Amino acid sequence: MERLNELILQKNSRICAGLDPVWEEIPKSFKASIISKMQEDNSEIEIVEEAVYDEIIYNYCLSYIDAVADVVPAIKINIAFFEKEGIEDIFWEVAEYAKEKGVFVIADVKRADIGSTSKAYAETYLCEDSPFDAITINPYFGTDGVEPFFKLAKETGKGVFVLVKTSNKSSAEIQDLKLEDGRYVYEAVADKLVEWKKEIEPNRYIDGYSMIGAVVGATYREQAVKLAGRTGKTFFLVPGYGAQGATASDVAVNFDWQGLGAIVNSSRGIMQAYKKDCWKDKYSEETWKEAAHAEAERATVEINKAINRYFERNRVK
Amino acid sequence: MERLNELILQKNSRICAGLDPVWEEIPKSFKASIISKMQEDNSEIEIVEEAVYDEIIYNYCLSYIDAVADVVPAIKINIAFFEKEGIEDIFWEVAEYAKEKGVFVIADVKRADIGSTSKAYAETYLCEDSPFDAITINPYFGTDGVEPFFKLAKETGKGVFVLVKTSNKSSAEIQDLKLEDGRYVYEAVADKLVEWKKEIEPNRYIDGYSMIGAVVGATYREQAVKLAGRTGKTFFLVPGYGAQGATASDVAVNFDWQGLGAIVNSSRGIMQAYKKDCWKDKYSEETWKEAAHAEAERATVEINKAINRYFERNRVK
Repeated sequence: MERLNELILQKNSRICAGLDPVWEEIPKSFKASIISKMQEDNSEIEIVEEAVYDEIIYNYCLSYIDAVADVVPAIKINIAFFEKEGIEDIFWEVAEYAKEKGVFVIADVKRADIGSTSKAYAETYLCEDSPFDAITINPYFGTDGVEPFFKLAKETGKGVFVLVKTSNKSSAEIQDLKLEDGRYVYEAVADKLVEWKKEIEPNRYIDGYSMIGAVVGATYREQAVKLAGRTGKTFFLVPGYGAQGATASDVAVNFDWQGLGAIVNSSRGIMQAYKKDCWKDKYSEETWKEAAHAEAERATVEINKAINRYFERNRVK
Repeated sequence: MERLNELILQKNSRICAGLDPVWEEIPKSFKASIISKMQEDNSEIEIVEEAVYDEIIYNYCLSYIDAVADVVPAIKINIAFFEKEGIEDIFWEVAEYAKEKGVFVIADVKRADIGSTSKAYAETYLCEDSPFDAITINPYFGTDGVEPFFKLAKETGKGVFVLVKTSNKSSAEIQDLKLEDGRYVYEAVADKLVEWKKEIEPNRYIDGYSMIGAVVGATYREQAVKLAGRTGKTFFLVPGYGAQGATASDVAVNFDWQGLGAIVNSSRGIMQAYKKDCWKDKYSEETWKEAAHAEAERATVEINKAINRYFERNRVK
């Protein structure tokens, strides 16, 4: 995770550009441009529908990465949208491309199972050859369901983000149940995470950010503040900013005073920036890439300012 | 799920044959036989390593299904082992083959995410065209992370198994945390499941087994007994029998008095039956398929007897 902190400093951005390629949301003009390019390149042969589909998704993902890679330190790719279309190969190709661009690449797969099966998942995403720098996982199975991820990540120098408090509306139903001892379930998960950190990386726990991070939704500010105190130097992957409703001021609480230790994800907010109120006069469907770039920059500045304000307001005076 | 009850009655078996194709566990003699068959069929062309690999896994899965499909009502395929090797296409082909054999086919994928992403996962595994009859999912996100699965399953007549109490050793760490109101987390999840059932299928809740089932590990007998009372007519997918240590007597408590409403998974126990103490004199690596068949039959009888004993012991006298 220290590499992610370095990239944050280097680019002075705390935005992770989420990539969820939903077919219906890919601009029509972009689809048309890929089709005509395919027709030019292959004028002699008939192009099958499936190949067109794959080519469009692939090029859309690459164009998105090109649009934001010079601004953001990280890109998070959600596998669900590739799995749905049976194009897991494109998921991997896109990740390789993102890696070549020098960003920190997160496999948003939220996997977990019993130990022997989690080991197979860990080997898939966290092996040496994998283009991914980190993965998201689910804590419901407890230690033996998460340990294979930690062990392999330690070996290969990669990171793991454990779901602690998710950004969705009904996350409270299970995660905010109150325990007999006064804690909430998500706090108990955070406490387990601290145990896991101590066990896997006893020294790192003191020195810097652990390779074990946490997913903490920006939509629950109060919980995030408590978690930051609770988990020590734990890197936060923060979803929920933008399309899901959290503001820059909400997410500021997730950072340390140097503006490190967290990354704020925005997926729809950047991918579909050309539709946003603040951009729709300047950009259109045809210039969706320029809009994505502009939005990545805007969000970067907005969050930097919010962090600055937050620590200015709360510092020793 | 009613179809699964019908298949249970028809075959008088309550065993779900788990399929986790771990490369290292595929018998060497089987691998050799596929390679020589490939060489015969393609004597003129060079065979690449990857093709050999795919062909072996594919044929191993099909042979396994052939070995057990006349005995068991259900087959559960864990995607992790296909995902690891980048052979998701084989996962789907194998599922299609199992479907043709007339068994109930479960996609063991344990997916979950925020609503919009869960919808993509649901459409992957529970759409009309999918060979799968049911899926396993994780409850950590709460209602909006699981609802897309229920809604689509209702439309397409398929089933969903929600992880409630998993079979692994450390499942207690999160799932057995005690709540302020006296319940355990897994009981709170079971209570949510009952709410979900009422909402999605208000009538089915009274009439018969809901399309929303639960994964309840056989390794925690006491919890299973409590859950059976708590969740009403909820179908239980019961892992943990055999290789994970639960006995037939442990799993008997998961069934209703007619021997319905549950299915007991055995993966390694059947796949690697030829290594078991009770079979190793009779079978060898070369006859792994015959051993798998024999073990599916043995486990079927063992569990039927255990259920019989359990209800005989506890019935009105």
